[in-house]
Amino acid sequence: MKAKEMMDKDFIYANADSSIEEISIKMENAKRFTTPVLDENMKLIGWVTSLDIAKGLRENKKSISEIMNPKEDVKHIHENDPSRLAVLEISKSKLISVPVLNNDDVMVGVIRSFEIVDTLSALYEVKVEKLYMVMAKQLKAFTWDELLEASSIIYRRTTSEKIKPEEYEKRIKNSTFGEAIWATGGLERFFSGLIAVGELAILRRIGKARK
Amino acid sequence: MKAKEMMDKDFIYANADSSIEEISIKMENAKRFTTPVLDENMKLIGWVTSLDIAKGLRENKKSISEIMNPKEDVKHIHENDPSRLAVLEISKSKLISVPVLNNDDVMVGVIRSFEIVDTLSALYEVKVEKLYMVMAKQLKAFTWDELLEASSIIYRRTTSEKIKPEEYEKRIKNSTFGEAIWATGGLERFFSGLIAVGELAILRRIGKARK
Repeated sequence: MKAKEMMDKDFIYANADSSIEEISIKMENAKRFTTPVLDENMKLIGWVTSLDIAKGLRENKKSISEIMNPKEDVKHIHENDPSRLAVLEISKSKLISVPVLNNDDVMVGVIRSFEIVDTLSALYEVKVEKLYMVMAKQLKAFTWDELLEASSIIYRRTTSEKIKPEEYEKRIKNSTFGEAIWATGGLERFFSGLIAVGELAILRRIGKARK
Repeated sequence: MKAKEMMDKDFIYANADSSIEEISIKMENAKRFTTPVLDENMKLIGWVTSLDIAKGLRENKKSISEIMNPKEDVKHIHENDPSRLAVLEISKSKLISVPVLNNDDVMVGVIRSFEIVDTLSALYEVKVEKLYMVMAKQLKAFTWDELLEASSIIYRRTTSEKIKPEEYEKRIKNSTFGEAIWATGGLERFFSGLIAVGELAILRRIGKARK
């Protein structure tokens, strides 16, 4: 996914000669903790946070140009950059938003930390049952029951807790991919468990065919 | 993971009778856009953002009690809640941080949006090659080369782009789980592709054994 597919095109902005008081009210109404400072062609020239605004008000400054952070100090990304870059910038520099620019340095959108949390967490909310359904569809030779049987055996092997296939089915209905990763101790181990299930199902099937 | 395992125990705070100017400077120095308001026993009684601070300064208010949001309006979670709850609150209510309380309503930590971005994105940064190594280890019967061969066949089937096993190996060395999910169009499809690889490897092995 590119930055331009993830960004919000709807954002507030200030000009260098805007009054601090006016921008303070604008940010409050829009509930934004940061605002870009743009020139008359919408090119990015600076950045202001609500902390800068409070400082300006305390020190009786008047215009945005007196308090803004210059463009050189503002982390920004290009609209065709992978949106992963925004994720890295936000977590590395502890930002709450990153402006997105086009080839002409014109600001075309913004990516905010809570939008990233939204996108990333959507992945975590996928039900484990859905992954089992994919597995069942892919391994066409197996019935749903065979997969659950193999799962409960693998589960018993790794935890020594006895669990019936029906209980296992209930568990995957109610748990998400995110929970399963925390529970098994990481993506690789979760993944390894699922492959073990597929492998065991195949071996049991071959064993039955030979009888 | 519980909230108390993810939270930052190091946070600034205000009291109801703190001066707005003092807290404004405290927030600026700590680079924090929000601060809890606590009573003398560290119990949460309110919340102040840098937007509230700017408003207070504009309107010439003096003490935090005049501008704080009351506890009833503050989203908070319990230290034993799953940290997933903080993720949901942040993305649903577009917050930048969530206070964590214990049984006595005492504030014991805070979870911030960029820390969540950090945690969630760590998962995305796992190299696809690592997942292949798990697969190779789990499917003990197969060599690394057999897996790559199967992968390039599955890849050709789904994209009709011809790719050699060596090129495929280069590709998984350089790409992350996150990129692979975006590229294949979702967790379920990525997962389905990997299972298809495992399945094909097994079938090819059985085929060879029969010859």
